[in-house]
Amino acid sequence: MEISASLVKELRALTGAGVIDCRNALAECRGDLEKAQQVLRAKGLAAAARKSGRVAKEGLVTSYIHGEGRLGVLVEINCETDFVARTQDFKTLAREIALQIAASDPRYVARGDVPADVVTAERAAYVTKARAEGKPEGQAAAEAERQLEVFYKAACLLEQPFIRDESRSVGELTKEVTAKTGENIQVRRFARFRLGEG
Amino acid sequence: MEISASLVKELRALTGAGVIDCRNALAECRGDLEKAQQVLRAKGLAAAARKSGRVAKEGLVTSYIHGEGRLGVLVEINCETDFVARTQDFKTLAREIALQIAASDPRYVARGDVPADVVTAERAAYVTKARAEGKPEGQAAAEAERQLEVFYKAACLLEQPFIRDESRSVGELTKEVTAKTGENIQVRRFARFRLGEG
Repeated sequence: MEISASLVKELRALTGAGVIDCRNALAECRGDLEKAQQVLRAKGLAAAARKSGRVAKEGLVTSYIHGEGRLGVLVEINCETDFVARTQDFKTLAREIALQIAASDPRYVARGDVPADVVTAERAAYVTKARAEGKPEGQAAAEAERQLEVFYKAACLLEQPFIRDESRSVGELTKEVTAKTGENIQVRRFARFRLGEG
Repeated sequence: MEISASLVKELRALTGAGVIDCRNALAECRGDLEKAQQVLRAKGLAAAARKSGRVAKEGLVTSYIHGEGRLGVLVEINCETDFVARTQDFKTLAREIALQIAASDPRYVARGDVPADVVTAERAAYVTKARAEGKPEGQAAAEAERQLEVFYKAACLLEQPFIRDESRSVGELTKEVTAKTGENIQVRRFARFRLGEG
């Protein structure tokens, strides 16, 4: 099938991918622009996963102050080069994540940051509750694991649904910018102060 | 001694104190404007000390970002009422303290926040060093206490010399704003992220 140069150009504008990648994706999808975008996105995300081992120590420390100083967020997002740190895509990501933290009050960056004793206590509480509801032992354990997933999704920034588009997690949003910029991007740490709290 | 209304007015402008306090201070200092300011300042600081037990849960969460996002500070400063939190004096204090944290990298707010094991380890290191320098035991202990004071002055925000005027500590600066606003003012907590650190 013949793929027109204008179609390639349009896909490039939409995704930022290279000419050859765009032509191949369009050929694979028989000129369907929407499907070709999905193909490129999937490939980009796969590449992003490979990149996550690379060293990220450039980036941005960004703040967000809400309600005339009643709530404040400080967050560090890392990438690999100062060049990417200065791009609008990266700055926007940092800003969006600061807003997310302000709105959704995560307690940890990732699931792996939750201390073991917190996980143990959460799990025990869910098992106790399931038992109290009269559930048999095997079912109580399964229910506790399910509740633990709900806990991770609420408490861990990267697992939270992105406030502007709840179909994606914050972690997926970050991976998309990794795909777009070609660099390993990591949320390193954050602080969130609400006036009079903590 | 007769105190002119214009002198009272001048002292009021300089200190923000009330008419009667200004007249009394000027009478006490025989019309010496500078001494009268010192008297008012001492009285204000004494009042500030009395106020430090009162509940402070209003205030501001303020941020400061340095070097295009290479360093960021988030700080919460408390006062007693939203009214004072909105004053320029309070906003300026919050801003100055955020700058101080960025420039001087304190590890704790106050001496009382240094964990006991850190104090023990610091003291032991100073004693060891003094002994190694051949100092007798009593002198080594005294030297260790002196070094510990140096440590507190470097590590604790409120004990650090204020970067804009090293004759005052940050704690003294805070007490002055307490004297000026008439409210208990406390630095509650801060976070400081340097890119790629920690």
